[in-house]
Amino acid sequence: MRIALDAMGTDAAPVSEVEGAIRALRELDDDLEIVLVGDPVLIEAELARHDGVPMDRLSVVAARERVSAKDPPATVVRRKPDSSIAVGLRLHREGEVDAFISAGSTGAVMAASLFILRPLPGVERPSVGTFFPTAGAPTLLLDAGTNVDCKPRHLVQFAHLGRVYMADVRGVESPRIGLLNIGEEPEKGDELAQETHRLLAADPTLNFVGNIEGREIVKGACDVLVADGFAGNVLLKFYESVAQFILGMVRKELAKADDAPSLDPVMRLLDYSEYGGAPLLGVDGVTIICHGGSPPKAIRNAVRVAAQAVRNDMVADMAAELGGERTSGETA
Amino acid sequence: MRIALDAMGTDAAPVSEVEGAIRALRELDDDLEIVLVGDPVLIEAELARHDGVPMDRLSVVAARERVSAKDPPATVVRRKPDSSIAVGLRLHREGEVDAFISAGSTGAVMAASLFILRPLPGVERPSVGTFFPTAGAPTLLLDAGTNVDCKPRHLVQFAHLGRVYMADVRGVESPRIGLLNIGEEPEKGDELAQETHRLLAADPTLNFVGNIEGREIVKGACDVLVADGFAGNVLLKFYESVAQFILGMVRKELAKADDAPSLDPVMRLLDYSEYGGAPLLGVDGVTIICHGGSPPKAIRNAVRVAAQAVRNDMVADMAAELGGERTSGETA
Repeated sequence: MRIALDAMGTDAAPVSEVEGAIRALRELDDDLEIVLVGDPVLIEAELARHDGVPMDRLSVVAARERVSAKDPPATVVRRKPDSSIAVGLRLHREGEVDAFISAGSTGAVMAASLFILRPLPGVERPSVGTFFPTAGAPTLLLDAGTNVDCKPRHLVQFAHLGRVYMADVRGVESPRIGLLNIGEEPEKGDELAQETHRLLAADPTLNFVGNIEGREIVKGACDVLVADGFAGNVLLKFYESVAQFILGMVRKELAKADDAPSLDPVMRLLDYSEYGGAPLLGVDGVTIICHGGSPPKAIRNAVRVAAQAVRNDMVADMAAELGGERTSGETA
Repeated sequence: MRIALDAMGTDAAPVSEVEGAIRALRELDDDLEIVLVGDPVLIEAELARHDGVPMDRLSVVAARERVSAKDPPATVVRRKPDSSIAVGLRLHREGEVDAFISAGSTGAVMAASLFILRPLPGVERPSVGTFFPTAGAPTLLLDAGTNVDCKPRHLVQFAHLGRVYMADVRGVESPRIGLLNIGEEPEKGDELAQETHRLLAADPTLNFVGNIEGREIVKGACDVLVADGFAGNVLLKFYESVAQFILGMVRKELAKADDAPSLDPVMRLLDYSEYGGAPLLGVDGVTIICHGGSPPKAIRNAVRVAAQAVRNDMVADMAAELGGERTSGETA
């Protein structure tokens, strides 16, 4: 299995990417190969700083351009065809690799993936998901901000994409699907939520557990939380900031004590880098998008997630789930 | 000044209400009178448990019925005309009191207030606001869940209602108005957010500070946060639960230490009862809605907030702000 890794994506590129790749090769499966895509001079220099790199399973593909946060996402492929994002995704489309990982601009990776890999037949709106830490297992939120003004049928598609992801990548066979809403009863919510509830409840292939209110999320009330990208994105950004806000206040109090206990276990649970990035679901390929601030561990975990998706034929399963025929057999 | 207090609203009614009323009379202004509305037998029995009650400024008005969470809000006034909610609001409409406070079912208090007090001219959708604790001053979120499927003009009305509330009740003369959105730039967001941004930016009477992302809220980036009630309600319920979730984890770690510092200062900042309830804005009167679990302190703070709204002619100011003529001069 070969995975392309954009080496120019993080704020500290290619440091995090190179170390993350080396850790993945050492710690994950023997049949894994990683292709680092980016500036070969920078990548080789960074590789030289590490000892014992398994070079037999690591290669470099040159990409002369780099996408910045200022590049308009929609035109990245046309304006920067030699960027690490475009080059890596073309390797994926052409079957040279089985998955693509980038910590570059989410909008650019998303737009380039849609353009180069294409949506799966039957998928109107591919969706970026993200994991929420909860008191139980982490919950996959779909959509996390890429799709606003959704129709009910889009949210139903998110539910199916999430179902396959949880089954193939996280081993949850019949994931509990919840609908973000402002009340428990089916008739609660806005027009979108009401109609989506009706469609989800009528779908016998989904384990729909009903409406999930804001207060139920952190209890781990569902495995996949379906929402319009507006509410999803607001929640996502709010969660990270509230956690930091509260822990900041707690730390101030703890600093007053001589021998305060460590908050490391709490930090670990809330640490997004444990979850291995945000999957873009519904395209004809495996794209994983990481935070720009990803440490090597997050990159390594993204490789683990991508490998799992490839190993379990996630893309083929999504194509079958969404009812369309696959146009390419290269990627899974 | 006279304020009607529904004595049958909290889960512990009338215990919290009676103690809260007594504390308000002792600690707040001398010209304050409180009318407890509810079952006179229960109220008198509870009053008898307190010493030195200032009975010259406290009276009881009998209401034979009690609204439960199971009563459909829309029909409460018709089905339970002698409920403490309906009786208290009629006292307000008739000018017997200047404000009404209840910790009963939010939906019922809202619906009964709309029916009995009526919306102010020019206000299409009266809105329940709620306060978010932040690193700065608390932020007033409008709408917190009563109005979904809002149009842009409704959100602009929320901004004006919030502006007057912050000026009259919290003394913030030119409150910063923010629009909940998923990006900073004006063109970000769904159709509702984009058009609302345009309207708010074009309104010279508002101190509009632009889009507020989920991560900016707890930084105290604005004084009034305008949102559709769907996103607002999701955020509100999520905030409370995330705070509890994180502090629960922190407490578990602290329990391992012999001499852990107190988290009381953190708890105080996050304590909703400090904020004195959720105001219903845009009706021809002052209605404050408290949590069902309100302790006496929260009731006392709701009285303080209601008194401030009355003293500063909040209702008249809102009527002027929203451009309509007032139909009644009783309440402010």
